[in-house]
Amino acid sequence: MKQSDRRDFVKQVGGVALGTVVGSGATALLTHAATDPSLPPLPWTYVALDPVVVAERAYAAYYAGGCMYGAYDSIIGQLQDQVGAPFTFIPTAMAKYGSAGVAGWGTLCGALNGIASALYLVLASSKANPIINEVFGWYGTTPLPTYTPKNPKYYIDPTIAKSQLCHESVTLWCKHTQYKTTDPQRAERCAQLTASVAKYTVEMLNANLAGQFKVTHTNSASVASCLSCHGPGGSTANVHITGGQTSCTLCHHWHWSGGVNF
Amino acid sequence: MKQSDRRDFVKQVGGVALGTVVGSGATALLTHAATDPSLPPLPWTYVALDPVVVAERAYAAYYAGGCMYGAYDSIIGQLQDQVGAPFTFIPTAMAKYGSAGVAGWGTLCGALNGIASALYLVLASSKANPIINEVFGWYGTTPLPTYTPKNPKYYIDPTIAKSQLCHESVTLWCKHTQYKTTDPQRAERCAQLTASVAKYTVEMLNANLAGQFKVTHTNSASVASCLSCHGPGGSTANVHITGGQTSCTLCHHWHWSGGVNF
Repeated sequence: MKQSDRRDFVKQVGGVALGTVVGSGATALLTHAATDPSLPPLPWTYVALDPVVVAERAYAAYYAGGCMYGAYDSIIGQLQDQVGAPFTFIPTAMAKYGSAGVAGWGTLCGALNGIASALYLVLASSKANPIINEVFGWYGTTPLPTYTPKNPKYYIDPTIAKSQLCHESVTLWCKHTQYKTTDPQRAERCAQLTASVAKYTVEMLNANLAGQFKVTHTNSASVASCLSCHGPGGSTANVHITGGQTSCTLCHHWHWSGGVNF
Repeated sequence: MKQSDRRDFVKQVGGVALGTVVGSGATALLTHAATDPSLPPLPWTYVALDPVVVAERAYAAYYAGGCMYGAYDSIIGQLQDQVGAPFTFIPTAMAKYGSAGVAGWGTLCGALNGIASALYLVLASSKANPIINEVFGWYGTTPLPTYTPKNPKYYIDPTIAKSQLCHESVTLWCKHTQYKTTDPQRAERCAQLTASVAKYTVEMLNANLAGQFKVTHTNSASVASCLSCHGPGGSTANVHITGGQTSCTLCHHWHWSGGVNF
């Protein structure tokens, strides 16, 4: 079916509340469609990618669609090019929503949102979650960026984000460098960070494919101490965090010094 | 192409670094594949959904795959059922990664991650971002959940999350109710919250489709005051937040009272 035909078809059926499936040439009406029958179930087969190719793609894609798109397209777009279907059915541009912690809200770093989303396409959760833990833990404790693209716009002084959130990650870098968030150096920092995150993730994915992935990230002694009461199984257990965490005291600075901030 | 044939094909081409396209029966080798040519470009056509049907689907899907999957599948899965292609090419199970702020990391609430991701499939960013702002702003300022499913497991006492992050949202509810995060009541709270977020988003989407969407969310006076220096255009401008925000002082409690916490 040509694209123009398919669009007309979608418009035709769009007005009626019937579930439909458009497969590879076959059309059927069902009350419950779910995914197209030509799509294999998740996870889809990952093939080893070149971490530097992915990093360069992420760097360029950042400037085309932001941090989440940069990270997501660098992996899924590269699999589209190297593998083809079923990855070609994913419109990677949908990942643009994660820019600057989702549409500028400063929540989760889009590069992390992007790689986590990509990981769940190619790995079962039992395999993806340990890699998410590694990348998220590394992100919070490593001077970033770690990767300098072949043609950088600026030299970027690395900082430790101490958090997986866009707001802390960017603001700590701005405080260190004295750049404003609206300066082009800040965008370049996030572009190089996106490339770094994508590269590190693909290194983990390749290690996993080769049966050589090893868990290295653990909670810091400080976080483990907090979670011993506040985490699952603790006496209070009011913190819903089962993954690792980089720091509790980045926000809860006064907990044991007499001034609990909330 | 049958699923088993397609999987064999993917395995065959997976080992070589050639871009491939598998279309509706047509196979071609290209150096840059991008998406399948049968897929229409984003955004895809949204049709009005029943907010209560979506809420009930989100509630059930939460228990099948967590908060992000619940919110995402309630909208995209419902469009799969009512519209069919191209929505049927999206494996909604990929959204399971966002559970508990991404694989248990307590960052962005998965229900918000899910609706933001869904919005970028059906709206251009210029139309999606104002709805993200409305839903995120409403989330941080409204006693949640707002929707009680037809067959709830427990009554849930609503609380204001004050933040778009899983950690704050859940912990403030646990502190109010004295439930632990591991109690089934906490899961039920998040299930009903997911249903509430999905329902509110679809109400916004339907209003937008009818040309009746109106922006109501604005930053609080307190946040606007902080951003007048720290936001874009301010003298310091080290906060990379262009969307709204619910509260700065939830974490930065001591800024003007002598004890800046960072």
